[in-house]
Amino acid sequence: MERIYFDNAATTALDPAVLDAMLPFLTNKFGNPSSIYSYGRETRMAVEQARKSVAKILNANPAEIFFTSGGTESSNMAIQAAVRDLGCKHIITSPIEHHAVSHTVEHMHHVHDIAVSYVKVLPDGHIDIEDLEKLLAASTEKTLVSLMHANNEIGNILDINAVGELCKLYNAIFHSDTVQTVGHFAIDLRNTLVHFITGAAHKFHGPKGVGIIYINENVRIKPFVHGGSQERNMRAGTENIYGIVGFAKALELATATMETDAAYVGTIKYYMHEQLKKHIPGVGFNGDVLGNSLYTVLSASFPKTEKSEMILFNLDINNICASGGSACTSGAEQGSHVIRAINNNPNQITVRFSFCKHNTKAEVDAVIEKLKALV
Amino acid sequence: MERIYFDNAATTALDPAVLDAMLPFLTNKFGNPSSIYSYGRETRMAVEQARKSVAKILNANPAEIFFTSGGTESSNMAIQAAVRDLGCKHIITSPIEHHAVSHTVEHMHHVHDIAVSYVKVLPDGHIDIEDLEKLLAASTEKTLVSLMHANNEIGNILDINAVGELCKLYNAIFHSDTVQTVGHFAIDLRNTLVHFITGAAHKFHGPKGVGIIYINENVRIKPFVHGGSQERNMRAGTENIYGIVGFAKALELATATMETDAAYVGTIKYYMHEQLKKHIPGVGFNGDVLGNSLYTVLSASFPKTEKSEMILFNLDINNICASGGSACTSGAEQGSHVIRAINNNPNQITVRFSFCKHNTKAEVDAVIEKLKALV
Repeated sequence: MERIYFDNAATTALDPAVLDAMLPFLTNKFGNPSSIYSYGRETRMAVEQARKSVAKILNANPAEIFFTSGGTESSNMAIQAAVRDLGCKHIITSPIEHHAVSHTVEHMHHVHDIAVSYVKVLPDGHIDIEDLEKLLAASTEKTLVSLMHANNEIGNILDINAVGELCKLYNAIFHSDTVQTVGHFAIDLRNTLVHFITGAAHKFHGPKGVGIIYINENVRIKPFVHGGSQERNMRAGTENIYGIVGFAKALELATATMETDAAYVGTIKYYMHEQLKKHIPGVGFNGDVLGNSLYTVLSASFPKTEKSEMILFNLDINNICASGGSACTSGAEQGSHVIRAINNNPNQITVRFSFCKHNTKAEVDAVIEKLKALV
Repeated sequence: MERIYFDNAATTALDPAVLDAMLPFLTNKFGNPSSIYSYGRETRMAVEQARKSVAKILNANPAEIFFTSGGTESSNMAIQAAVRDLGCKHIITSPIEHHAVSHTVEHMHHVHDIAVSYVKVLPDGHIDIEDLEKLLAASTEKTLVSLMHANNEIGNILDINAVGELCKLYNAIFHSDTVQTVGHFAIDLRNTLVHFITGAAHKFHGPKGVGIIYINENVRIKPFVHGGSQERNMRAGTENIYGIVGFAKALELATATMETDAAYVGTIKYYMHEQLKKHIPGVGFNGDVLGNSLYTVLSASFPKTEKSEMILFNLDINNICASGGSACTSGAEQGSHVIRAINNNPNQITVRFSFCKHNTKAEVDAVIEKLKALV
């Protein structure tokens, strides 16, 4: 049986056209972009062209876009800088953040003695905006709000503009982990009240090992990685040129056909949702499945039985790739902190199915057939 | 005129065999190594195989090798951890370190109030080991010694074992930036008294954007980048699989033919040294050129004249790639801190020529011909 890959929120296949764009920089164009000779300037131009392209797509200033090794580094950089350079002594975040944020926040708490407040999450998985306002109103110190744009496990999308307005009102710094939305949703940074966002190319058919951080031009921070003067002194280390070129190319391709891809991938998600309800007794869903949610992610819960406890294992045997939650935590075997935060029912087994434009309804049908036998 | 690339200390061409090893992970093998299904386990196995291979070559335990985004991140990680997790309150370093070290040390000084001492550098560019011992003996607090194994600008090689012995004697933590020696010299970590070393694949015909940190099993530190449980909770972020595979493959290839390559590249360096002396009046050299020095690096100084001030520019026009110092600082136009530290003569123009196995004596002859006209 052909592999069915329903784990696109974990990582996606590299688009062959992206690889084609990267290959010159993996072969003859290897000059160090920081070199002063023309051969190095060629690669520097490629890096700066990539930056301009990314900035244009996100409606930002090129000077606000910095390339990093990935979304995790970007979130570490934003949170650390908000504390160290912007004077934040209190962080408001949620219990359903990706570990790139939650573990960094915990580190700031333990090592730098930063107060942390967790905003309430509603039963549908959305952030309780009223509670956020209460926390902001009660905060007596400079505050960082770190809330993800879309949740990687349940798909819920934050009202980033509403949060941005609140942060402005209370003079808070706002960081949003946008790793699941960059390349998937229209992002208009000129008209979004956010100080930091992050992106990772491998979430939208780009290469692994490269990401961006957007730093709003109104905030001045120090680097996270110190050393050479790369990225205008903001991120030291010889540039991963082919990765940077791949990031930009992948974002260009993803956004060029975003509307039609989103509509198509959405039909796959909704079809799977419908077929699961129809064929799997007792199935439940996590998050605001049919509401303000990623078109790429469907989190389903199955009644816990001896059979269903083996579901991911058995899907794997059948060459179906799906995950229990975030890939970044799947090794941990502690269950999902996101599902725990919105659903206290221990008698459920959660499976995240996540889709891309390469998936088909026929694949959904095949997975449903297997699930009938496995649950 | 064909390009002559004499800037291999800045970065090297990717070996086509390394690209071949990477390509499966840039095409069909894209699974997230942290996933639990077999398709993700395939890539995890590739990462772990790479780790074993690197560890074996460096004579370390695989549990001591962690993949990072490059040498700069690795040095940041080591220095930050020595301060934060190992209690170092004093750093002894040299004025000729790469900025990945020196700027991180300065950051520790400014932000974390860590005392910094600079060991004397001898006129031949070597570290004054007696002065190092004096500094260690006088240090009243837990100390980190950060001294590079080989200097990227002048090529001088540190007696890493002597420094390791001293650090042991004075109970200091020892970090060595080995970015210029990993893949170029035999490194035997089991028999070297060092706590942290670093490596970057692109310095030995591997890909940019990937490096390693070796963390001696006797020290326990926290991550630099927080988040998912990748790299056994020591470096969060979805693994740059093709980069990691490329790092290992490049190191395997570089070390397989290291002796013959080193001998050959050495002949190029010594030939260029000899030809420069013969044909360029007033030429000088920086560092211990013919002594304990990288076979890859030759730092030459030319008398300052209107013509020689334009030397790098004119070499570039003639399609010859060489640099004034470190590529990481070439944009800064402040001149080289390394050359300043060992040579106070402002009436010299310094050019670093750095070589690899692809260079030839015919290229040296061509460059010498040009230099005759340019100096």
